[in-house]
Amino acid sequence: MKTHNFSAGPSILPQFTIEKTAEAIKDFAGTGLSVMEVSHRGKEFIAVMDEAQALFRELLNIPDDYSVLFLGGGASLQFCMVPYNLMSKKAAYLNTGAWAAKAQKEAKFFGEVVEVASSKDTVYNYIPKGFEIPTDADYFHFTSNNTIYGTQIRKDFDLDIPVVCDMSSDIFSRQIDVSKYGLIYGGAQKNLAPAGVAFVIVKNELLGKVGRPIPTMLNYQTHIDNGSMFNTPPVVPVFAALQTLKWLKDNGGIAAMEKINEEKAAMLYNEIDRNSLFKGTVLNKEDRSLMNVCFIMNDGYETLEKDFMDFATSKGMSGIKGHRSVGGFRASIYNAMPKESVQALIDCMAEFEKTHVK
Amino acid sequence: MKTHNFSAGPSILPQFTIEKTAEAIKDFAGTGLSVMEVSHRGKEFIAVMDEAQALFRELLNIPDDYSVLFLGGGASLQFCMVPYNLMSKKAAYLNTGAWAAKAQKEAKFFGEVVEVASSKDTVYNYIPKGFEIPTDADYFHFTSNNTIYGTQIRKDFDLDIPVVCDMSSDIFSRQIDVSKYGLIYGGAQKNLAPAGVAFVIVKNELLGKVGRPIPTMLNYQTHIDNGSMFNTPPVVPVFAALQTLKWLKDNGGIAAMEKINEEKAAMLYNEIDRNSLFKGTVLNKEDRSLMNVCFIMNDGYETLEKDFMDFATSKGMSGIKGHRSVGGFRASIYNAMPKESVQALIDCMAEFEKTHVK
Repeated sequence: MKTHNFSAGPSILPQFTIEKTAEAIKDFAGTGLSVMEVSHRGKEFIAVMDEAQALFRELLNIPDDYSVLFLGGGASLQFCMVPYNLMSKKAAYLNTGAWAAKAQKEAKFFGEVVEVASSKDTVYNYIPKGFEIPTDADYFHFTSNNTIYGTQIRKDFDLDIPVVCDMSSDIFSRQIDVSKYGLIYGGAQKNLAPAGVAFVIVKNELLGKVGRPIPTMLNYQTHIDNGSMFNTPPVVPVFAALQTLKWLKDNGGIAAMEKINEEKAAMLYNEIDRNSLFKGTVLNKEDRSLMNVCFIMNDGYETLEKDFMDFATSKGMSGIKGHRSVGGFRASIYNAMPKESVQALIDCMAEFEKTHVK
Repeated sequence: MKTHNFSAGPSILPQFTIEKTAEAIKDFAGTGLSVMEVSHRGKEFIAVMDEAQALFRELLNIPDDYSVLFLGGGASLQFCMVPYNLMSKKAAYLNTGAWAAKAQKEAKFFGEVVEVASSKDTVYNYIPKGFEIPTDADYFHFTSNNTIYGTQIRKDFDLDIPVVCDMSSDIFSRQIDVSKYGLIYGGAQKNLAPAGVAFVIVKNELLGKVGRPIPTMLNYQTHIDNGSMFNTPPVVPVFAALQTLKWLKDNGGIAAMEKINEEKAAMLYNEIDRNSLFKGTVLNKEDRSLMNVCFIMNDGYETLEKDFMDFATSKGMSGIKGHRSVGGFRASIYNAMPKESVQALIDCMAEFEKTHVK
């Protein structure tokens, strides 16, 4: 039986990425050596790093005055690197989820944090709107997709201060205008690569303006000056990222991906709204994430939750348990998730309805 | 023709590690999914993390009052995390190489650094001795093996202040008494795993004593409290590390490995000392590294350097070019390097001598 991987992260990667990485683990670029054991200064790996950076730029149409970095430590390390490098006195944060709150918490080590709005009181089940962003803040930070709660902000803010965005869970899933941002970062383990590498897109002119001394590894300029090779990069995740970027380009790039993602999400949300056994957890439909679809048992059917989980599991659905703070179910349908798997989940839901609703 | 991988790092890994990782990239623990795309909170990966930590402890005989961490970001990030967490006012550093100097540089962001001794003036070709370590320093830091220069300190200091050691390039290659150390750290990419994970062994009682606020990801206590799973760990490198630890145990553990390492190094140094074409670069034989064997052309034979490089390459020797600051050749013979490959290099050197010395 096929396993349908709806895991929230680390999460499904293209078969192309998996196959190419498995090959390179055995023999990398004809070296006779594993990609795990070659020098990162060798011409074969330098070619990987160069091509990954070039494709990353090309697919996102990144302007020339931005740098692209691949760094170890994950997006969580970026939570402190961002204020370390960009915050002189004050920064504005939008609190739309646990990860947004974690980012905000780290900024408090470096200055004043203004929380422009928060949906915490209702377990983050909507995206606040109509808030004011202080014009004297060093930057405005938001999380574009909230993996746990299934909400998403699919617009580029147009501000007079730098916009910083954590796009860990929706980078490459939809078209963005990078020129509207000061810095975009994220962990790679959703739409790009296995865990262990973070990406950073930063407008060069924003750096070097804070007064504080910055330890070398935490200073973006270090990594810009050294092409993400100041220290040994996470070689396997970078190699895998390149394969995913190639797959993305071969499949029509981000525009094509966005169209498929919209279709996949519509299929699944339609079933949730149609099926009398289930309901979505997000308050307003326009806030629903295209990446993480959260739903619970409908009123009156709460006791069927475990039964549906067992049924879906028996049909090969994997990783659909909702986060403990939301409960119910979460189907993560990142770029690499085929429509067939979304349909398989929908079929499960419909079949379960037939046998449980008279 | 077999490729003999003498690369300094990332470097040769056991075939067992390569094969098991290649398998898991395709199908991990019978999940039907790649190890790159499973949740780190799933029971299969938690088992990997738990077993890796347990084996790490067992092989190094780590006392119960120490924690073992697997972190992203590499050893270079530890250069600042160590003083962030342990330095109140003053720290003592021994400068035996470029990496030792980099570690020392980061400590200066946090307080006064006393350089107890340095061999920088002679391109780090010896290990300083007879230096004094201030008894009021918060800790004493040294680098046990200097990859670039081929020197090594194979003794455990016995001090009244905490001893901190960067063991990136000789961890698991020789027996150590962990109880003599306050903290040991290193990148995994020599004797353990592919690049992308660093290990930290820290005596718990040393933490929480500095007054400064520490960003969450840079605070060792965060990672202790969360079993190295505060954020998504570098899953593939941790998986590979577990395979290497299993291989190490199955091959007799560190005592057995140390014996083989001593034999391999003796074979190669004997050839360097015997062969009229070559000479070692390290001033005193007792400072010679068992991991990185550095040698250059002997006086009068300097012009043969490129010829020997071409000859050795033609025989399958890979990664033997010396670091640009030392020149000549460097053969890195980590745990996973078989005696047969060391012998193959020795045979090259002997054959080259026969054809070039009349």
